[in-house]
Amino acid sequence: MPKIAVIGAGTWGTSLGALLDDNGHEVVIWSALKPQIESLSSTYRHENLPELIIPRSIKFTPNIEEAMEKADMIVLAVPSIYTRRTAGLMKRYYKEGQVVVNVAKGIEEGTNLTLIQQIEDEIPGVNAAVLSGPSHAEEVSRKLPTTCVAGANDIKTAEFIQNMFMNPVFRVYTSSDIIGIEIGGALKNVIALAAGIADGLGYGDNTKAALITRGIAEISRLGVKMGGHFQSFYGLSGIGDLIVTCASMHSRNRRAGILIGKGKSMHEAMDEVKMVVEGVYSAKAAKALSLKHGVEMPIVNEVNAVLFEKKSPKTAVDSLMLRDRIAENSELAF
Amino acid sequence: MPKIAVIGAGTWGTSLGALLDDNGHEVVIWSALKPQIESLSSTYRHENLPELIIPRSIKFTPNIEEAMEKADMIVLAVPSIYTRRTAGLMKRYYKEGQVVVNVAKGIEEGTNLTLIQQIEDEIPGVNAAVLSGPSHAEEVSRKLPTTCVAGANDIKTAEFIQNMFMNPVFRVYTSSDIIGIEIGGALKNVIALAAGIADGLGYGDNTKAALITRGIAEISRLGVKMGGHFQSFYGLSGIGDLIVTCASMHSRNRRAGILIGKGKSMHEAMDEVKMVVEGVYSAKAAKALSLKHGVEMPIVNEVNAVLFEKKSPKTAVDSLMLRDRIAENSELAF
Repeated sequence: MPKIAVIGAGTWGTSLGALLDDNGHEVVIWSALKPQIESLSSTYRHENLPELIIPRSIKFTPNIEEAMEKADMIVLAVPSIYTRRTAGLMKRYYKEGQVVVNVAKGIEEGTNLTLIQQIEDEIPGVNAAVLSGPSHAEEVSRKLPTTCVAGANDIKTAEFIQNMFMNPVFRVYTSSDIIGIEIGGALKNVIALAAGIADGLGYGDNTKAALITRGIAEISRLGVKMGGHFQSFYGLSGIGDLIVTCASMHSRNRRAGILIGKGKSMHEAMDEVKMVVEGVYSAKAAKALSLKHGVEMPIVNEVNAVLFEKKSPKTAVDSLMLRDRIAENSELAF
Repeated sequence: MPKIAVIGAGTWGTSLGALLDDNGHEVVIWSALKPQIESLSSTYRHENLPELIIPRSIKFTPNIEEAMEKADMIVLAVPSIYTRRTAGLMKRYYKEGQVVVNVAKGIEEGTNLTLIQQIEDEIPGVNAAVLSGPSHAEEVSRKLPTTCVAGANDIKTAEFIQNMFMNPVFRVYTSSDIIGIEIGGALKNVIALAAGIADGLGYGDNTKAALITRGIAEISRLGVKMGGHFQSFYGLSGIGDLIVTCASMHSRNRRAGILIGKGKSMHEAMDEVKMVVEGVYSAKAAKALSLKHGVEMPIVNEVNAVLFEKKSPKTAVDSLMLRDRIAENSELAF
């Protein structure tokens, strides 16, 4: 029976742990937070997943060595700001042959490294892969049909991950494009912020669809320069994940955007949403990357101007609408 | 001052007429329905656009010769089932140098021809172009920011259309890919039906995002075989329009899908929606085209099975989830 360690007991780690247990694998979930481990292992309920009854066959542990010891696959499910630190903890116990599947999204402030790049920094020789796609944890815990893509450096690893996760309500595709999958997932939150701002301004579905469509176009221009495949940005981990994020009131980024569109400052909006608004960091990272790689990103620029230069949201949208008249795909000549 | 004829006084023709008048052009709107012309020219209100006050400078006429006589641009805005017949009426009055911009979407039953192909059939030598994108008429009439793409055979025509329509709340991109734009617009309704069925089954945002993402992937596979550019399917007229359609309760296709997902038959659903459900015809057309061009379209096949072969919606979704394990972009090798 394949053995799996899930590192991180948030909603996503717990939902995936339950799914992997349902698939017949042996699952241990680790968390750095002892009270969380105590609560989970006594109640087998997660406070943010009210409908999930966690299978009793799952073990919880505060001991990372115990979690990783016999694992064939290690699912790294900590928030992106803790990825580097947690990979550092894992280094001592990582053994050749183990597959690390990262399921968080983000770019490191300052270095602008992706999560897989950070993991590879911390654990030399690691076989690190990624699982991403339009997948609210809460819906996965309710067994609603969901699709994801598993990206790895070799097809054997990608297919191994596909086989571990796939079941009648969770369909997994394979891909070789780790960097493309990561860039799509990390930068979608800038566009979700922009979509929220448009909602806050009282604009309609036309405006939102335009921001999503042109938003993924500029993300793909950057991502391709960084080595990603164009197709990944139009797949489940790119446009698919962006659609889910922009449609959902679960998204903190969209909620913060709505408040900003209604006239609040970035700090007021972040105070009111009361949680980390990743889009604010991704906006900075995206701008830095666009400058580094020489890629034009008009939506990213306007979001930065609204967040950090007090540009009014309405003026920002007007600037986007009145840019030079251009072809939709300037690389396609007449 | 450029002169424009709008052929068809539905919500889309009327909204675009008002926009073109705002842009300073001389606009005449024609309709085959005399009572509609009488009502519009006496009240300057449209019954399905309650917020729009139609500019008094617009003329209405039941005489197609009068409408077309001096027009530089003719906007063809009749429902797709009337496109061929209306183009036949226009033939006698069409003069070289006039640009016909079709703004409806569809595929002809039986022939499987696009609307531009039908117009070219009926008016030999016509300069026919297309305007498409995520654009609910009602939102355009309220001047909410909207983006579209103008597709034409030569860049001069595309830029002419761009200049006619573009303003601070209506951004127009140019494209040379008429067929790609048309296929995306015509087949999106099959996917909207599928998304509605998933909603009716009680599935969540994850499932809907998966259907949209994999749906446009199969439409693009077909469209590229038919001569379209891959990029168009991921632009405003493809994924952009699909996102708007699947998000909106305005969409008859989505509403019909919801009823089918809840257990009604196709005929019961169509009776209840009380309007033409284009997705039902597009589903047939898409299947015929997929067979003709040898392209695999699993979502199209399952929608057809539900509509015409009494397959249960739940079994259809299960079939999609449990297909062979594949790579997301099988053309991208490891």
